[in-house]
Amino acid sequence: MSYKTDIEIAREANKLPIQEIGAKLGIDSKDLLPYGHDKAKVSQEYINSVQGNENGKLILVTAINPTPAGEGKTTTTVGLGDGLNRIGKKAAVCIREASLGPNFGMKGGAAGGGYAQVVPMEEMNLHFTGDFHAITSAHSLLSAMIDNHIYWGNELEIDVRRVAWRRVVDMNDRALRQITASLGGVSNGFPRETGFDITVASEVMAILCLATNLSDLQKRLGDIIVAYRRDRSPVFCRDIQADGAMTVLLKDAMQPNLVQTLENNPAFVHGGPFANIAHGCNSVIATTTALKIADYVVTEAGFGADLGAEKFMNIKCRKAGLAPDCVVLVATVRAMKMNGGVAKADLGAENVDAVNEGCANLGRHIGNLKSFGVPVVVAINHFVTDTDAEVQAVKDYVASQGSEAILSQHWEHGSKGSEALATRVAEIADSGISQFAPIYEDDMPLFEKVETIAKRIYHADEVIADKKIRDQLKIWEEQGYGNLPVCMAKTQYSFSTDPTQRGAPVGHSVPVREVRLSAGAGFIVVVCGDIMTMPGLPRNPAAKTIQLNDDGQIEGLF
Amino acid sequence: MSYKTDIEIAREANKLPIQEIGAKLGIDSKDLLPYGHDKAKVSQEYINSVQGNENGKLILVTAINPTPAGEGKTTTTVGLGDGLNRIGKKAAVCIREASLGPNFGMKGGAAGGGYAQVVPMEEMNLHFTGDFHAITSAHSLLSAMIDNHIYWGNELEIDVRRVAWRRVVDMNDRALRQITASLGGVSNGFPRETGFDITVASEVMAILCLATNLSDLQKRLGDIIVAYRRDRSPVFCRDIQADGAMTVLLKDAMQPNLVQTLENNPAFVHGGPFANIAHGCNSVIATTTALKIADYVVTEAGFGADLGAEKFMNIKCRKAGLAPDCVVLVATVRAMKMNGGVAKADLGAENVDAVNEGCANLGRHIGNLKSFGVPVVVAINHFVTDTDAEVQAVKDYVASQGSEAILSQHWEHGSKGSEALATRVAEIADSGISQFAPIYEDDMPLFEKVETIAKRIYHADEVIADKKIRDQLKIWEEQGYGNLPVCMAKTQYSFSTDPTQRGAPVGHSVPVREVRLSAGAGFIVVVCGDIMTMPGLPRNPAAKTIQLNDDGQIEGLF
Repeated sequence: MSYKTDIEIAREANKLPIQEIGAKLGIDSKDLLPYGHDKAKVSQEYINSVQGNENGKLILVTAINPTPAGEGKTTTTVGLGDGLNRIGKKAAVCIREASLGPNFGMKGGAAGGGYAQVVPMEEMNLHFTGDFHAITSAHSLLSAMIDNHIYWGNELEIDVRRVAWRRVVDMNDRALRQITASLGGVSNGFPRETGFDITVASEVMAILCLATNLSDLQKRLGDIIVAYRRDRSPVFCRDIQADGAMTVLLKDAMQPNLVQTLENNPAFVHGGPFANIAHGCNSVIATTTALKIADYVVTEAGFGADLGAEKFMNIKCRKAGLAPDCVVLVATVRAMKMNGGVAKADLGAENVDAVNEGCANLGRHIGNLKSFGVPVVVAINHFVTDTDAEVQAVKDYVASQGSEAILSQHWEHGSKGSEALATRVAEIADSGISQFAPIYEDDMPLFEKVETIAKRIYHADEVIADKKIRDQLKIWEEQGYGNLPVCMAKTQYSFSTDPTQRGAPVGHSVPVREVRLSAGAGFIVVVCGDIMTMPGLPRNPAAKTIQLNDDGQIEGLF
Repeated sequence: MSYKTDIEIAREANKLPIQEIGAKLGIDSKDLLPYGHDKAKVSQEYINSVQGNENGKLILVTAINPTPAGEGKTTTTVGLGDGLNRIGKKAAVCIREASLGPNFGMKGGAAGGGYAQVVPMEEMNLHFTGDFHAITSAHSLLSAMIDNHIYWGNELEIDVRRVAWRRVVDMNDRALRQITASLGGVSNGFPRETGFDITVASEVMAILCLATNLSDLQKRLGDIIVAYRRDRSPVFCRDIQADGAMTVLLKDAMQPNLVQTLENNPAFVHGGPFANIAHGCNSVIATTTALKIADYVVTEAGFGADLGAEKFMNIKCRKAGLAPDCVVLVATVRAMKMNGGVAKADLGAENVDAVNEGCANLGRHIGNLKSFGVPVVVAINHFVTDTDAEVQAVKDYVASQGSEAILSQHWEHGSKGSEALATRVAEIADSGISQFAPIYEDDMPLFEKVETIAKRIYHADEVIADKKIRDQLKIWEEQGYGNLPVCMAKTQYSFSTDPTQRGAPVGHSVPVREVRLSAGAGFIVVVCGDIMTMPGLPRNPAAKTIQLNDDGQIEGLF
């Protein structure tokens, strides 16, 4: 039996005009700002008008630690959303936007897979509605205004060696990682070292995704620390007077994008911050808007639950006043086998023992998630090669952990395959049993926050940090930043900081290499390992084969 | 008497849904890709479907050399378009898009002025439909792929000292004019000098504006020379295999944008290449599409007629097979007075003598334009301070030059004020008297092309160029580029290369500083003077005061 590729399925989609998708949520066509016939932004006026509505139920989809087998977190998010609609619930999906640049390195990512996808796939992987371009522009304006301030006399006394604000571009361009700028003489400014990150790593991206409205956006932009003086006192974006113009550049981008699933159900696709140096979730405004107009909102967090769900709950939910009513933890039989030591090439053969062994990773995530007070359902994202005995092994293990696992076949059958999962998730969400709380309080000292996550989520023995790093955290506490949450940047492949340690490692330490203050976004980034904020292109980038075919369709992007 | 500002008038506009504007030209709403409710792109499918139609009449609006008094070329273009519609003609306007970056330096430009404007003004000065962002992305992809090629072994043997392709950003950022990139060690590549231009200076912009369709676009992108080897042989974009992916990134941007005038008449706003190192006209595809669906198309060229109209005719018309049926030369009484030696502060007082003296500039443009075989009408763009005697002086002078001048009051009265101009222009266009031909043949040697323009248009005595420059032109001729037109880059303020020489200078020389080959765009750039391809921000950039007001409107942009 042969299966169609994601792009083949996506191209066969019977898309409805976006106005009809909006109508399912009660959005009038005048409140939708169309971008072509199948994409729209929801107007700020409409968002303001629904603030008095009751909130729907919030369902978070997260996953075990990623393996090369692929877990299908977005696929399950979309499949569950379609499943909820199938059983008669008014449900919407909220996911992140894709970054343009990386698609020219490796083939682009579909939003979901099989019969659980969001469309239009090509546009979502290219310019979409221009949000990331707006973020690049706003970031670039601040960059230019900082050097312009220095050029015209540096009234704020910025130490040119301590400009913290780098530049960004939405392209994988390793040549720009480190540069010397302002060369060429007097009229070009004062030479200094700087560099470019990819746009999704911009603090502006994190800010856009955490801002609750336009005035909050401007306030947060103003709070960005762009540089320091010789006395180490910070210079803010507000001091440079860039916050107003940046807000103007981001005005349209703040409005969530509405598209549709293959089954013509509403999907909000908005924002896409890095999941390491930022919190890795779609925008707060998309989630809060969806909650006002849908009865069930299915959203996802980046990477595995140790990083993504932890940040979703400790950062996004804390800051936005959100509380998940149910958490869906995605696992696959194949990923369990890889966690149990099976190589990717051998995944085809039944291996119940390996499944059982690999379940330790799953079990730890279940326990971690429960520690936030939320009910957890495991979704076994079905692959056609899974055997009944393997699936049963996962179910039995999850039951032994006091939770339940449900097989879901949305990839192959769309909402027909996710009906059981949707039914159970709706029951749990409706039951009101969730008792969500972040796992640390705002007033806990910063280093203790790091220790809390390391010990309770990563199950590490200790956190190792130089005196310099601990001192830095203390300085920020003295400056009034001690109440911020911490944003952990570590490998997504393991609970530990060693990407090869699958399963549920114990006895490990978490070394902190660096800490960074994202004062506008409102978190302290804790870097534990190598974090790449500007990817490079591979030897044979996908771009070499991306082209339009004779029918005007895009080839090579997927 | 006090007058409303452009932005006040624009905000009072009774805009129609863009589908109703399209309907005026027979475009079905399915063939319009909306961007919000007041902007749309015309689909490629629709463009293909109208190729069999007869062409309408093409009217070029150009101007005398710009003065600080302002001539109102775009205002007249819009006013004439509205005037033609008023007298019952099916007319459309074609103008350029604005660049985002410069708006944050000085206040942004309206598209037109008074009661002759194109709206929505804010969006047109910000992200609009994302065309310039797409150009930045396509340019950036090629930049990244060149350094990536070098990084992975440099199979094409690019001389890293001779990479011709710079980077771009749509922001005034002087700090990026000259940089050293690829610093930081082995994993970041080979350090080399490079720099950024502003996006409108990208050859990709010029290419998009000259390409006739998507396959021509890809062919031209492939033709870009990105670098040279040690033996000086060129390396093309096609060799880097970036042309296909760049075309994919530009697919949507190639579709012309439709907006409306204050009087709800159709306006195409598409493309915006520099008017010095490029040809400075809106896209060929917008003009050719408009000609297929409107009976009269009013378009404009950058700067004064010596630069803008010359390039419109010798480059754009030559390449796209276009021929103007009438040329409108915009002049103002105020500009005539400045050309006649009056300072800006003294423009308020009647001064017929100065008008008479300044008319020499106008007269030379009339003669130049006629040398292309086209009929010329002078539009006197009325200012409320102009006296009857001053206006009559211009009319008399123009009559003495064998042409006619018509007073037009579109700024104050909209189409009611431009009815007379529209009536006369339509008569001339309909008469078929235009005998358009470029002023040099394709097969003329490159240096002779420069001399032809300098002597016949600038009325210079000679062109001065080093042997090195003459040799370079010969090498390009040997390589097969001798049939290209030349694209002059000189000051727009004078017929000469000295911006202070107003009027109609004689006895001057044109020194050529540098020549550049834009092999993809298809012209040789001849640089005569300082050309800035990356502007800087002023001491107090407009960005400092740009912000959203309490009603969500943008303040400080205009």
